[in-house]
Amino acid sequence: MSDQPTRFPSREGSAYGRPPAQSNKLLTEVGPGTPCGELLRRYWHPIAASKSVTDLPRKVKVLGEELVLFRDAKGRAGLLYPRCMHRGTSLFYGKIEAEGIRCCYHGWLFDVQGRCLEQPCELERGRHRDAARQPWYPVEERYGLVFAYLGPLEKKPVLPLYDNLENLAPDQEMWCTVSGFGSTGDDSLDVVPYSWLQMNDNVMDPFHVHVLHSTFSGVQFHEQFSLLPQVDFFYADHGVCYSAVRQLEGGREVDRISSWLMPNIMSVPDIRFKEGQSDGVSWVVPVDDSHYVQAFVMKMPKGAGGFALTLNGKTWGTMTEEEHQRFPGDFEAQAGQGPISLHSEEHLVTSDRGIMLQRKLLEKQIEVVAQGGDPVGVCFDPAKAVVKVRSGNFYRAARAAG
Amino acid sequence: MSDQPTRFPSREGSAYGRPPAQSNKLLTEVGPGTPCGELLRRYWHPIAASKSVTDLPRKVKVLGEELVLFRDAKGRAGLLYPRCMHRGTSLFYGKIEAEGIRCCYHGWLFDVQGRCLEQPCELERGRHRDAARQPWYPVEERYGLVFAYLGPLEKKPVLPLYDNLENLAPDQEMWCTVSGFGSTGDDSLDVVPYSWLQMNDNVMDPFHVHVLHSTFSGVQFHEQFSLLPQVDFFYADHGVCYSAVRQLEGGREVDRISSWLMPNIMSVPDIRFKEGQSDGVSWVVPVDDSHYVQAFVMKMPKGAGGFALTLNGKTWGTMTEEEHQRFPGDFEAQAGQGPISLHSEEHLVTSDRGIMLQRKLLEKQIEVVAQGGDPVGVCFDPAKAVVKVRSGNFYRAARAAG
Amino acid sequence: MSDQPTRFPSREGSAYGRPPAQSNKLLTEVGPGTPCGELLRRYWHPIAASKSVTDLPRKVKVLGEELVLFRDAKGRAGLLYPRCMHRGTSLFYGKIEAEGIRCCYHGWLFDVQGRCLEQPCELERGRHRDAARQPWYPVEERYGLVFAYLGPLEKKPVLPLYDNLENLAPDQEMWCTVSGFGSTGDDSLDVVPYSWLQMNDNVMDPFHVHVLHSTFSGVQFHEQFSLLPQVDFFYADHGVCYSAVRQLEGGREVDRISSWLMPNIMSVPDIRFKEGQSDGVSWVVPVDDSHYVQAFVMKMPKGAGGFALTLNGKTWGTMTEEEHQRFPGDFEAQAGQGPISLHSEEHLVTSDRGIMLQRKLLEKQIEVVAQGGDPVGVCFDPAKAVVKVRSGNFYRAARAAG
Repeated sequence: MSDQPTRFPSREGSAYGRPPAQSNKLLTEVGPGTPCGELLRRYWHPIAASKSVTDLPRKVKVLGEELVLFRDAKGRAGLLYPRCMHRGTSLFYGKIEAEGIRCCYHGWLFDVQGRCLEQPCELERGRHRDAARQPWYPVEERYGLVFAYLGPLEKKPVLPLYDNLENLAPDQEMWCTVSGFGSTGDDSLDVVPYSWLQMNDNVMDPFHVHVLHSTFSGVQFHEQFSLLPQVDFFYADHGVCYSAVRQLEGGREVDRISSWLMPNIMSVPDIRFKEGQSDGVSWVVPVDDSHYVQAFVMKMPKGAGGFALTLNGKTWGTMTEEEHQRFPGDFEAQAGQGPISLHSEEHLVTSDRGIMLQRKLLEKQIEVVAQGGDPVGVCFDPAKAVVKVRSGNFYRAARAAG
Repeated sequence: MSDQPTRFPSREGSAYGRPPAQSNKLLTEVGPGTPCGELLRRYWHPIAASKSVTDLPRKVKVLGEELVLFRDAKGRAGLLYPRCMHRGTSLFYGKIEAEGIRCCYHGWLFDVQGRCLEQPCELERGRHRDAARQPWYPVEERYGLVFAYLGPLEKKPVLPLYDNLENLAPDQEMWCTVSGFGSTGDDSLDVVPYSWLQMNDNVMDPFHVHVLHSTFSGVQFHEQFSLLPQVDFFYADHGVCYSAVRQLEGGREVDRISSWLMPNIMSVPDIRFKEGQSDGVSWVVPVDDSHYVQAFVMKMPKGAGGFALTLNGKTWGTMTEEEHQRFPGDFEAQAGQGPISLHSEEHLVTSDRGIMLQRKLLEKQIEVVAQGGDPVGVCFDPAKAVVKVRSGNFYRAARAAG
Repeated sequence: MSDQPTRFPSREGSAYGRPPAQSNKLLTEVGPGTPCGELLRRYWHPIAASKSVTDLPRKVKVLGEELVLFRDAKGRAGLLYPRCMHRGTSLFYGKIEAEGIRCCYHGWLFDVQGRCLEQPCELERGRHRDAARQPWYPVEERYGLVFAYLGPLEKKPVLPLYDNLENLAPDQEMWCTVSGFGSTGDDSLDVVPYSWLQMNDNVMDPFHVHVLHSTFSGVQFHEQFSLLPQVDFFYADHGVCYSAVRQLEGGREVDRISSWLMPNIMSVPDIRFKEGQSDGVSWVVPVDDSHYVQAFVMKMPKGAGGFALTLNGKTWGTMTEEEHQRFPGDFEAQAGQGPISLHSEEHLVTSDRGIMLQRKLLEKQIEVVAQGGDPVGVCFDPAKAVVKVRSGNFYRAARAAG
């Protein structure tokens, strides 16, 4: 018998004989040594809310690496490789002390930069302990978040500031979350079970707002999204922006500007169309190739205490499978693409131009890093650490129709 | 050290040093492009009960392919590749409309043959939409079942009729299920977690009825099965039949004829030994290499509402693990062979002749398809679409003892 | 783009750019044909408590092999390859008879040495049945345990006796368990989810007792373990021993001698520091590369009925995840090394000398077996089957300080 069965050409669009499909590995593989993983490792990433980092060590997974995060008794956050360098026991079971974390098995004590301070079962509590070093990563805290840098130390940039997050008014407070809030609108998921690229694609896609969130199963955010906007995409500020102009009654229009910054940072304007600059920033942080968490920071009125979105009057976590089918939101649209979408099957069209610009920029910067350069958006000068955020809802008199 | 540890010859049948075992991949691999998968793709397969196909899309998996099944508002069943051709979101979250199904993400609308009718975020709702086609498969409905054809369109045969399912009497109705009913006798399992071949082997094996169902742990079906029959196996009607003759009291005998039709179709006579032609037909439809569903169609008295078998007085789904051990049935015998049996370890004997005939026919027809031919049992002439079913329990005066 | 992204040297102990880590496959792979698997197959291993082996067949997995264990109606334990040699159905669903076990599917009957006694669907109940043999392994019972030998029959050693388990006093009884008791101190786990080597490493490591069990989160066993002992490691009796001397008040000292015998046998002295020879023996039996069970036999006062350890006043199985973090024990220290530790990352120090001796002996004996020889500790002479166990807590007047 021949090894290969006879294949017939696919006719009339039949599903028979369609070619195997592939994911875009270049943009979805995030582990150590992968091209995109190395690009992502040149930026700071928020990995946890500061208040969740205590004397009880917690497991975190970032860019495919399992790590342990804790706060020592002097208040310093530490991010260490979890396997104790001595015999490999997890520091998840370590005990916090003033100077660091102590392994439960044989008591080796490490500080937040991995220095070994004590080996209690060795002579003189470890005559050679200075030669030992537990692998570690730098962390810094800002806006209520713990940021980590997983790249080469000599390439560590300044942790950026964002102009829209500075200057908190007296009646405001900072709200933050690191979770699946961005895809479900509630606190159901700690981790989102699909590629970071699928959420990243979503942000420069103003058209899905018109369908998924407005006309498919009712208004999810605000009625104004039902109006199909006039959209312009453009590169700006080491990222991509769109301007979506909607004509309102009474001769006015609103220009909704949204922005995405390299490599995974976004600022979406207020979804109730409140006037002015966006109040928040978020980051889509890969956990591994097929999972991510999204960190949000947002200025809020004091005491607001966060919020949750509803679909058909219910929060996402309380809906049945049939309700998820009948009232799908971002989670269903993106999880429906699979753990890692099969990009070879995509048919991108005019309305997908924002995504094409994002991916082209990511690909180009992956190449820059692979060639030994520094990617756009990293800054080594503390004096230039403030990033200007363009995003917002801007109202004005209608211009002449284009 | 040498790479290979010293091995000793297996002595006295010891389990030490036995060779690695293999599955028969030729007959158990069912995915696209596999030899058996291509053979199976030349026939129609029932994939769901018609009444289960509604305006709420459902996931089905057939021959290793994940698909979405729905009924449009005009009543047409549709079977589409689930990933929307635009950006890959699952049509499981699609919305049914009169003309087809609409993707939740950007609203592309497809009919049951995959034609793209609308792209609402594009100019003129998609000036090039006619060039787009969502991959689809043909479906037809009969006997309360939705049948699908997953092969090349130019080789699509006529959907067969079965003579024993035609001419429903006024007091009869058609009962059907697509589930694990055939292995458990109840409605516990939606999908059966082992290879289709294991159930397929079971049907031309009249001897297991004598042991498993009659003498091992008591009578499961009917006392008459306790009699060891005189069995004859033969090829017939593009399949394999057996005739099992049992001598009864009073000088009578019963000839139980069971038949299996290429490639996965069977008609088992009434298991309470009711006289006459079999009332039903079933299909063992592979879900993937290690899972299947069995579709049953059976004429029943009106209002009978289906039935469930019991073992030791309990339905399968209510038994404990120990009860399954002490009162095993088809599920235990077949699941006990593993997700995919290790056929290299089999020792087939005289009583396994039916299985040998089935496998030989399958292998031969796999070769026919691989060589570009049409396998037996497919029919392209609507005038010849009726299949005669031989199966039944036939009573008569005992012939002279052989 | 170049295939490899630029890599930077790891600096300041950063976790960036650390090399991939490996397990020690030589000592952790236990399946058929692996070097360590072949070494382990030259010894008897306890696989179940005798009382758990009944007329209801049970599944056991040992050294990567799935088997079925039962007791025939004459009281003989049998250990067979589970897939019936006829058509592969599991003998887990077999029925026990006087002479052996009968397969549920077609009724083949096998004795405890795999001989086929009946093939009821064949002529004359199997004219060729003597040629059939179900793969089997030898078993013997002692100390309330079923021991199995999975190696080549011609190399089967005598099942050893242990001097400390002989001569049960009239007020004593034998207590045994085959479970995760040795790692959790209670009966929560039937199987322990990490490599046998991790528990094996633990026994010649007297220093972890000082940290993990005594000073890290309070005294788990006995206060005396808080004293850091003077430890000497040495090869003895086809294994490794340590002597740990602690200076007590009043000019006395206690010498705690613990021993490990090839390849996975250990006798730990009474953990409440009771004087005299150890009362028990235990075996760390690999289930597969990343799971094991530990068999314990121990002399106990009659009616004691076993015991359970507590951590912070609770048994292991009733503790929360946070309590496991704050009061870790052997399970956390060893499971924290992962399913199979990454040995290439270890940094063994002076206090790990016992482990180094054990591993060296294992490696050497693996080589002996690979070269065709017999490893140490196997005995073919029934007259020499008694093993002397050195372990115990021995009190005496303090010697001059070293």
